[in-house]
Amino acid sequence: MAGAEIERLVQLLARLPGLGPRSARRAALHLLKKREVLLDPLTRALGEASAAIKACSICGNLDTQDPCAVCADSRRDAALVCVVAEVGDLWALERSGAFKGRYHVLGGVLSALDGVGPEALNIQGLVARARSGELREIILALDATVDGQTTAHYIADRLVDTGVKVSRLAHGVPVGGELDYLDDGTIAAALNARRPA
Amino acid sequence: MAGAEIERLVQLLARLPGLGPRSARRAALHLLKKREVLLDPLTRALGEASAAIKACSICGNLDTQDPCAVCADSRRDAALVCVVAEVGDLWALERSGAFKGRYHVLGGVLSALDGVGPEALNIQGLVARARSGELREIILALDATVDGQTTAHYIADRLVDTGVKVSRLAHGVPVGGELDYLDDGTIAAALNARRPA
Repeated sequence: MAGAEIERLVQLLARLPGLGPRSARRAALHLLKKREVLLDPLTRALGEASAAIKACSICGNLDTQDPCAVCADSRRDAALVCVVAEVGDLWALERSGAFKGRYHVLGGVLSALDGVGPEALNIQGLVARARSGELREIILALDATVDGQTTAHYIADRLVDTGVKVSRLAHGVPVGGELDYLDDGTIAAALNARRPA
Repeated sequence: MAGAEIERLVQLLARLPGLGPRSARRAALHLLKKREVLLDPLTRALGEASAAIKACSICGNLDTQDPCAVCADSRRDAALVCVVAEVGDLWALERSGAFKGRYHVLGGVLSALDGVGPEALNIQGLVARARSGELREIILALDATVDGQTTAHYIADRLVDTGVKVSRLAHGVPVGGELDYLDDGTIAAALNARRPA
């Protein structure tokens, strides 16, 4: 191990999701070998992202502008709001190209295990948006996990008296999915939600 | 996807070994969520590493000083040199604590497939060190792969007329290794190199 600088770099890289101590060491070496084409550009990109990116004050999306590009886009349906746990989920929905409304990022899901209560999530902001009278429908696009579904239940309860329609993503067979490899819960959900062929 | 800054960051992160496009996106989001405790310290660490770390002019190790801490350490055996392909291999040997000589980093291995010839590696420097008359033994610590062993053969040939003793790492059963899971080549090598119990 050579130098406190490398040690520090390895320790910080190891805190990225997907990198452990061993792969962080490989990444640090790779960066030092490719100084001009990778290390220095990455340093600049990190600095620029840190300086430029902020959370949208309306939906919580990350962008260089506030309101974010999605909230500022007048061609999108402002009365349709999709609730997601994290910005990464928002990106996933945007990649699908299937949603033309706006978003609301909670910043996580309720979790008794991790001690995440309703006050830690941006639920108050969602209720305020629902009460504004400008929303027609709120789609809860949360993970089909215990924590995700608990959060969806809780939010649906909080939104009952706002008069806004609340819906959820459908459960079913993933596109390209093979029945043989699907878990029982998904097969049961897909059966229950069957549609005319 | 929000902003060219995030896109650029994701693209650069995806070029790190161990991170693909998907995990790079997760890493970028994680960095932006943990700005004070991770993103900004990482930016500083990268900048400091880029400014401070250089290759040792004797052995090729990466360090903040030249000669590196290993070459500058007078308690280490200067007549015993261990040849490794990459700095990561040098670190692995240092972690083992089993070697008290010095190193020579080739900067890779010969590879017909990747078009890496002898002139691309620091073999000339190794031959010069061998001819200096200060070395007693050179240990070739190269991967037990086709490319690694080809490189070891080539270097051994080049060192024949220097009069320096050339050795290699032993093949055998890894410590903690179970025979049942070992490949045939390793079992054969361990049998051939068997020692009195």
